[in-house]
Amino acid sequence: MTLQERDTKHLWHPLTQHKTHPKSIGIVKAKDCLLFDEDGNEYIDGIASWYTAMYGHCNPYITERVQFQMNQLDQVVFSGFTHKPAIELSEKLIQILPANQQKIFFSDNGSTSVEVGIKMALQYHFNQGEKRQVLLALEDGFHGDTFGAMSVSGLSVYNGPFEDFFIEVKRIPVPTKDNIDIVLNQMQEIHAKNKIAGFVYEPLVQGAAAMKMYSAEQLDKILMFCQDKNIITIADEVMTGFGKTGKYFASDYLNNQPDIICLSKALTAGLLPMAITSCSQKIYDAFYSSDLKKGFFHGHTYSANPLACTAAIAGIELLKSESIQIRIQEIIIAHKAFGNHIESHAKVKSVRQTGVIFALDLAIETSRYGNTRDKLFQFYMDRGVFLRPLGNTVYILAPYTITNSQLEKMYEVIEESLMIV
Amino acid sequence: MTLQERDTKHLWHPLTQHKTHPKSIGIVKAKDCLLFDEDGNEYIDGIASWYTAMYGHCNPYITERVQFQMNQLDQVVFSGFTHKPAIELSEKLIQILPANQQKIFFSDNGSTSVEVGIKMALQYHFNQGEKRQVLLALEDGFHGDTFGAMSVSGLSVYNGPFEDFFIEVKRIPVPTKDNIDIVLNQMQEIHAKNKIAGFVYEPLVQGAAAMKMYSAEQLDKILMFCQDKNIITIADEVMTGFGKTGKYFASDYLNNQPDIICLSKALTAGLLPMAITSCSQKIYDAFYSSDLKKGFFHGHTYSANPLACTAAIAGIELLKSESIQIRIQEIIIAHKAFGNHIESHAKVKSVRQTGVIFALDLAIETSRYGNTRDKLFQFYMDRGVFLRPLGNTVYILAPYTITNSQLEKMYEVIEESLMIV
Repeated sequence: MTLQERDTKHLWHPLTQHKTHPKSIGIVKAKDCLLFDEDGNEYIDGIASWYTAMYGHCNPYITERVQFQMNQLDQVVFSGFTHKPAIELSEKLIQILPANQQKIFFSDNGSTSVEVGIKMALQYHFNQGEKRQVLLALEDGFHGDTFGAMSVSGLSVYNGPFEDFFIEVKRIPVPTKDNIDIVLNQMQEIHAKNKIAGFVYEPLVQGAAAMKMYSAEQLDKILMFCQDKNIITIADEVMTGFGKTGKYFASDYLNNQPDIICLSKALTAGLLPMAITSCSQKIYDAFYSSDLKKGFFHGHTYSANPLACTAAIAGIELLKSESIQIRIQEIIIAHKAFGNHIESHAKVKSVRQTGVIFALDLAIETSRYGNTRDKLFQFYMDRGVFLRPLGNTVYILAPYTITNSQLEKMYEVIEESLMIV
Repeated sequence: MTLQERDTKHLWHPLTQHKTHPKSIGIVKAKDCLLFDEDGNEYIDGIASWYTAMYGHCNPYITERVQFQMNQLDQVVFSGFTHKPAIELSEKLIQILPANQQKIFFSDNGSTSVEVGIKMALQYHFNQGEKRQVLLALEDGFHGDTFGAMSVSGLSVYNGPFEDFFIEVKRIPVPTKDNIDIVLNQMQEIHAKNKIAGFVYEPLVQGAAAMKMYSAEQLDKILMFCQDKNIITIADEVMTGFGKTGKYFASDYLNNQPDIICLSKALTAGLLPMAITSCSQKIYDAFYSSDLKKGFFHGHTYSANPLACTAAIAGIELLKSESIQIRIQEIIIAHKAFGNHIESHAKVKSVRQTGVIFALDLAIETSRYGNTRDKLFQFYMDRGVFLRPLGNTVYILAPYTITNSQLEKMYEVIEESLMIV
């Protein structure tokens, strides 16, 4: 039996309606920027396996380190104990995070990193005896699938059956030059009524909202308002982190730094699940007390897994290397040239780019998971390119190690696909 | 600088008040059932690193397989794609799970496996147009630290600042021979008023409630009631799964099988973070539809990570092996003998055991994270044994590969420790 056939027996895939999408492609190998299926086809990994494998698949610089660690210390309880991979990672990460970030708290995925951020914000006020129970978030934000993370997410496709069970969250539009005064007024009103505990946002690029982009300048005004009112700011950099915007973090484009940053995906260089919530000294200090109950009683069993920490250390070293930094700039330039070329095409409504994140909106109407999306997906796969259109948006977020010819091939296939819509 | 010193700079540990507990022990190596610290001390891992490393640390049977996989296929999106490690794991797991379990859904830790279970239960009713919004759970249950998982947990030490943000959950006492009629009546009343969507429980042993144990017979009556009312039953076997109760799963002791089972911890044999929520065909079928929106729109980026799946496959093979199965029975017998020996001690209030899980209550009053607990912890560590007392409960949940002399040493040190309380 093929993998595809065996798969259908017992596996329930994420974000999948199995009746309308019964077949999964059996992937047997990955190397650098290529995926190989069981029928011998190869695909360029145009979204770096959901923005994780930024240094290419099965990169020996990473895997050899993990292999060594696996024979040294695989796992140990992270309460009362510590270990070198976690310590080294914290040191290396603090070096590249915005200057106000001082402490590192571990969990296992983007959703839990956001849950941790929300809980830190709520308990920050609670520990000081101030009742602040409302959270603020951006419309169309996406922050994960657990109840806390769903609550702050505004994308209703994911939340439908669960909306009655959410934490109270007020939403503001993504800020623009035109609406910023209205947005700030709105925040003022919400805060006067409810006392906002924290503000959760994806800085500069909203990933699941089909790579919606917005300016640092307007976001800075919102962050300034929050700082003024002691509203804890939580930057969800799960998608944008680790070089994708052209700087280490999207927050590096801002003048106002967040109190809390959520990290996952590329954190572990595409090898293993892990997440981190970093925070400023101010947050940490609000929990540091002789009163045990003021501590942060959150913990996952595999927190700071030594193997995942080791992959993350190797990933940060690669990110900081000259060759990757040069490659990031080259990809940015290549995307720009393609954007300039394609934006006047009749089937293209608009193009946009932040760092190595390139997105193009088709001049058609289609639903997020509709037929056109499926047709495009198949068109790309048939031509050896793995891209995952979201509604009428086609985007590229390839590994930094992608070659020029692979980039060219993606551009060509995207341009070709405009004929079928 | 020592690891212990470097640790304090940037790391925020789980479940830790850093002011009262500033020092973490730097662990540099783990092998079989031993942990080694940076000062050259060694410790028997008496709780298998939070019930994960059941086949010993850095076990080459597991690590060599993961090493191979790491050079083959490290990670790939699990929507639209599939791979051999996930398929093989699903096949092997279904073979040992209770017979009604048919589908496997992946996530990354125990909390998210419970969130998935809750969401499946709520959406199961939602998809059929029935409004059921109340969950039922046991008093003192513990199911994780994300908002959904916290909601069903009854241990207030973890929930304090967040209780205003929870899903509505009704609680019933752990059933006993004496209270079972009252409990069933209570369920009847709650259901008549609210229509219960799902019931979440740790079968037979409540881990975080200091290894509280209760009988399969009474639990079976509760499950029968739930099945009769189409209340979805969610067994949280994150702690109890994979042999710890003496059978593969605690649910194997019951006549009524749960609709949903949550798994993590020993699932990946102590190597890597991963979780699974399994379910019956009935649950899966309620989501299988031409209507896209009836699908389950939950997904984590590293879902079904091939390396974690590979570790899990190796773990299941070891669990099923004759040598491990024999060893489990030997540990059960050894614990029984120790229990018989120690239960008459003046400082011992009671002993209890389910499979290889052994617990002893001291005849003293002390708080969960109080001084006596710290004193005992230090006493054990000073003698080379890693045990983590919870309040006045001392428990053992060692790897199945623990040697007889290591077992003896733990028993001796526990007996010795009775002098200091």
